[in-house]
Amino acid sequence: MKKINVGILGAAGYTGGELLRLLVNHPEVNIVFANSESNAGNKIYDVHEGLLGDTEMEFTSEMPFDKVDVVFFCFGHGKSEAFLKEHAIPANVKIIDMAQDFRIAAPTHDYVYGLPEIHKEQIANCMHLANPGCFATCIQLGLLPAAKAGLLTHDISVNAITGSTGAGQKPAATTHFSWRSDNFSVYKLFTHQHLHEICQSLNELRPASAPHVVDTLDEGFNAEGITVDFIPYRGDFARGIFCTEVITLDQPDVESDIVALYKSFYEGAAFTHYSDKALDLKQVVNTNKALVHVEVFGRKIVVTSIIDNLLKGAVGQAVQNMNIMFGIDEKAGLNLKASAF
Amino acid sequence: MKKINVGILGAAGYTGGELLRLLVNHPEVNIVFANSESNAGNKIYDVHEGLLGDTEMEFTSEMPFDKVDVVFFCFGHGKSEAFLKEHAIPANVKIIDMAQDFRIAAPTHDYVYGLPEIHKEQIANCMHLANPGCFATCIQLGLLPAAKAGLLTHDISVNAITGSTGAGQKPAATTHFSWRSDNFSVYKLFTHQHLHEICQSLNELRPASAPHVVDTLDEGFNAEGITVDFIPYRGDFARGIFCTEVITLDQPDVESDIVALYKSFYEGAAFTHYSDKALDLKQVVNTNKALVHVEVFGRKIVVTSIIDNLLKGAVGQAVQNMNIMFGIDEKAGLNLKASAF
Amino acid sequence: MKKINVGILGAAGYTGGELLRLLVNHPEVNIVFANSESNAGNKIYDVHEGLLGDTEMEFTSEMPFDKVDVVFFCFGHGKSEAFLKEHAIPANVKIIDMAQDFRIAAPTHDYVYGLPEIHKEQIANCMHLANPGCFATCIQLGLLPAAKAGLLTHDISVNAITGSTGAGQKPAATTHFSWRSDNFSVYKLFTHQHLHEICQSLNELRPASAPHVVDTLDEGFNAEGITVDFIPYRGDFARGIFCTEVITLDQPDVESDIVALYKSFYEGAAFTHYSDKALDLKQVVNTNKALVHVEVFGRKIVVTSIIDNLLKGAVGQAVQNMNIMFGIDEKAGLNLKASAF
Amino acid sequence: MKKINVGILGAAGYTGGELLRLLVNHPEVNIVFANSESNAGNKIYDVHEGLLGDTEMEFTSEMPFDKVDVVFFCFGHGKSEAFLKEHAIPANVKIIDMAQDFRIAAPTHDYVYGLPEIHKEQIANCMHLANPGCFATCIQLGLLPAAKAGLLTHDISVNAITGSTGAGQKPAATTHFSWRSDNFSVYKLFTHQHLHEICQSLNELRPASAPHVVDTLDEGFNAEGITVDFIPYRGDFARGIFCTEVITLDQPDVESDIVALYKSFYEGAAFTHYSDKALDLKQVVNTNKALVHVEVFGRKIVVTSIIDNLLKGAVGQAVQNMNIMFGIDEKAGLNLKASAF
Repeated sequence: MKKINVGILGAAGYTGGELLRLLVNHPEVNIVFANSESNAGNKIYDVHEGLLGDTEMEFTSEMPFDKVDVVFFCFGHGKSEAFLKEHAIPANVKIIDMAQDFRIAAPTHDYVYGLPEIHKEQIANCMHLANPGCFATCIQLGLLPAAKAGLLTHDISVNAITGSTGAGQKPAATTHFSWRSDNFSVYKLFTHQHLHEICQSLNELRPASAPHVVDTLDEGFNAEGITVDFIPYRGDFARGIFCTEVITLDQPDVESDIVALYKSFYEGAAFTHYSDKALDLKQVVNTNKALVHVEVFGRKIVVTSIIDNLLKGAVGQAVQNMNIMFGIDEKAGLNLKASAF
Repeated sequence: MKKINVGILGAAGYTGGELLRLLVNHPEVNIVFANSESNAGNKIYDVHEGLLGDTEMEFTSEMPFDKVDVVFFCFGHGKSEAFLKEHAIPANVKIIDMAQDFRIAAPTHDYVYGLPEIHKEQIANCMHLANPGCFATCIQLGLLPAAKAGLLTHDISVNAITGSTGAGQKPAATTHFSWRSDNFSVYKLFTHQHLHEICQSLNELRPASAPHVVDTLDEGFNAEGITVDFIPYRGDFARGIFCTEVITLDQPDVESDIVALYKSFYEGAAFTHYSDKALDLKQVVNTNKALVHVEVFGRKIVVTSIIDNLLKGAVGQAVQNMNIMFGIDEKAGLNLKASAF
Repeated sequence: MKKINVGILGAAGYTGGELLRLLVNHPEVNIVFANSESNAGNKIYDVHEGLLGDTEMEFTSEMPFDKVDVVFFCFGHGKSEAFLKEHAIPANVKIIDMAQDFRIAAPTHDYVYGLPEIHKEQIANCMHLANPGCFATCIQLGLLPAAKAGLLTHDISVNAITGSTGAGQKPAATTHFSWRSDNFSVYKLFTHQHLHEICQSLNELRPASAPHVVDTLDEGFNAEGITVDFIPYRGDFARGIFCTEVITLDQPDVESDIVALYKSFYEGAAFTHYSDKALDLKQVVNTNKALVHVEVFGRKIVVTSIIDNLLKGAVGQAVQNMNIMFGIDEKAGLNLKASAF
Repeated sequence: MKKINVGILGAAGYTGGELLRLLVNHPEVNIVFANSESNAGNKIYDVHEGLLGDTEMEFTSEMPFDKVDVVFFCFGHGKSEAFLKEHAIPANVKIIDMAQDFRIAAPTHDYVYGLPEIHKEQIANCMHLANPGCFATCIQLGLLPAAKAGLLTHDISVNAITGSTGAGQKPAATTHFSWRSDNFSVYKLFTHQHLHEICQSLNELRPASAPHVVDTLDEGFNAEGITVDFIPYRGDFARGIFCTEVITLDQPDVESDIVALYKSFYEGAAFTHYSDKALDLKQVVNTNKALVHVEVFGRKIVVTSIIDNLLKGAVGQAVQNMNIMFGIDEKAGLNLKASAF
């Protein structure tokens, strides 16, 4: 079978590196170019840990779009849109954008929001895909079954902790080892930008009878509807996101019904599974999996959900989307050994 | 001035060790005995890291209560009460109990709940003191000002993460380094035993007009009143607790009023301070301090509060209580250098 | 092609778990049984992190040796030999033993020491294989090229740091998170048991003109010859071994010659590569790779070598050996994504 | 008693912060100014973790040298000498320099090398003091007793691992949490700048009969004498240095004699103690202590030595030196609670 020819823009960053670590072992992929102006001519393994011995490929300043079937945008947020204004990508080349530039649907673009658990068919038929954010993926996977069932009728308490790789490659005060190790802190309290895409999906899935989910970043805290009260934390580990979502029902519910609802929702999902046991983060680290677990206390449903922020929360999901877009096995190149320790 | 003669029971455990680390440098204390059956005759520094060079004292199997002014119970939970049934402590010897055995007021005992921020006078006049739990201390310090002001009228969302020293000295699966490092997990979801003492204090401080705070462990989730929905997490660091408490008001409030309320409540507190800036855990690690910070979003007040679980959350607060009980400077022996890194 | 039918004994331990994580994705392997008395009937993913969603297989108390081509012994040291005294393995079933029981050649057994970099042909033709130790693998890979070239003529300084997974699954004082995190310590100074197999290989490869390498554990420190002065450290990370070997030459040497010697020695090795740059541990974590780097200062050659202790230092190398023993691609099932972070 | 009036230059850096954490609790010190151009007017606790509640002091751009008895230079290396060329410090103001600018004795300056274990009398009588480096302190404490006894007659193998705070406050690739956590790496192999001061002390203490210790940085690797082969490592913890020094004797020695030698050398030292047990780093973290332990194998003496790099390896030792220079209790302000966990 003909391989998928892939180009990568922004290949020297964290997501670029993790994408390369996946694609060098992907059985159906041929990496045509890994673009990085500043690293052109350098070996990929000189920049990205763990690739020595896997590939002798070098970064290039070239962008031969005519030689590829798909191009991954691994730019920082805001740069994808800017890049497209200055460069023409051939119409027959698919685009998978890691940034948030096209995650919110708009008449001005045709990007499909690439969460396979809800958009598999659209993904399979699209040319342009906006890959979801890391927190957004994990939180949505915890809330979507309840949203679809119309159970979201009160404000939702969400807290989620992320590893340091979420903050990118550039050294900063909050990623300085001396500060971050053994530390724990909160940031962007109630105002994290992923609220946009989370609210978009919740409103997309909810029945008309359920209340509007307010995007407080756009609509403020006094708008009519329910809110997602999202508390993001910085953890002292490199990989992974652990989310807890507390849903308040109108009436107490039976735990078995809720569990059945969640199990049914994710039946057939390639990488998202319901776990009967309490979660811990390392169950998914270095894999493309998401795990979801539910417990019920009176009117409160407590959902926990976990992913690896660089994989299911970024490039792993991007490769999953690529697989769907090209009609190959959804799991190709993604049967990863969990690091576990 | 005559020094305070101190005896320690359970001196070979984590809290016993941390208490010894404090008391060897306490200017007003004379350590009379450090009791441990299993370690009798061993140097203290052979068991407790960091004490070589500070003291040549040995553990003893003796318990000369007639030679001390105060005895610290550093037993595991449940053992303090059992110990007192089998041993007589002279009436003129004060007791400071680290366990949860006497934290809930009852006609059967005269132990004062030792949270100086609300009970300073009772502490100063008591013979027997029940030292608060670690999570309980941190969560209460985040909620007490609002409770007293009658602002707790809806269910309260609490999540809190603790370091591994909270799990004690005995090796276990969840404190195994290979599992715990880089990991994050939830436990005792909505059912942590510290809810008892938290609810006791909130009900003690609230005005009669405010609703009853339901101790769901005793009263269940359907009782009349509001609940404290407490999600405890295990973090991959050794020391510290970071709590977030989300309070929902009846009406949106002005941030400056709430901040003023909190600042005023802790004015004059020896170790609990309001911080104008966002918190991170290492601001208090290895100190007896608690820091509290507040932000307001519409009807939601988000309080963050931090302590070192072994110090303000355990023996540091116990020494603070001892200082108050003996009428000496509340900060004696507790001007600790933050580790910071 | 017919798959290799595999049985695993001791499947509930750390190495058993890591072996399962590899084999569930190995394209040429069919796992016939995973034996664990104490976990019989439990799902494998209930014991081993990271396997939920990958397999529904359960542990079994059965040992159907007639259904397998090869059996892996994942016992603790000393138990393999004991097991074989009580159980008969059919003569046509290959054995790969993870323990140290048969690593030292003896007339009483026919196990081949499974270090592919020096024994590839013997491995390809053997029925019984003793898989090398983790420290032993990493240290040998740093010393073997020099040994073969006759450059080991003075005592060799070796220090090596290992992650906590090297200490196994059973919780202990030295793997307690509260103690191990942010800590560093030394153990088995100059007396680590891997010296046996290291000395065996160095003596096997050295030319007759080079001095005998003394196994100080057997021969003492005053025997004629040179010694390997091995300082093992415990690190505060879960995976990986970083070794430094300092070789003293009779005469100063040219760096380029030594580097050429090392490069040439590992040319064609499937997983062991020479790196032109200084090493850091995460370059190999969660892979089966070994990296080696050399610098020269006067008469001193400083070699650094790194592996993942659970993979190239244990089950990764065991699977590599299995691949060689069955004549399939040496890298099958071992093209692992580095965790990198 | 009149307090010591202290000024601090470079007060916003890591060592400045740690010095402030010590001095705010020093019973004999009055902090007159904490100079930082870039932070002038900011609260000290806004920059330095752990000081909220301890002091309301602000950074200043002033340098009122006429109001102080001693000034601490907390500059980066090279800046102390530059500063003194542009500023006049009154002759009656003592200087304690944290940088390496004046650690090597020279006719051009009168700075005393401030290692109290060998220079206590000179320190007591000096106006200007060069505080030793962190690695240098720890390695010297492991070697000085042997040097003085004339036991250093062969090349010495030294390896030492440092925490990330040794790399300073400025974020860099090697202090990025995502890279540093769970990682281990080597740097400045055999060429660390602290070799200068180490060799200076070893040559100062050795008897005339013992060979010259070659400073390979100045004299190269072929000079006559013995060398200190120093391998520095970067560890994945924030605080502490763990050193191992291997000394080769001419003849095998009796362990008890060597131990007695070390114990005797450090008898009376305020903070340096011989430990009968194997060391682990957390025994000294957050204290000003150094611990030393010795084991003997044939002709090899293995010494391990540990310190906190920011305290005994930097400002703790500086305060110890200040105490000696002002004739007060050597331990004043340095009775620190070990963090232990």
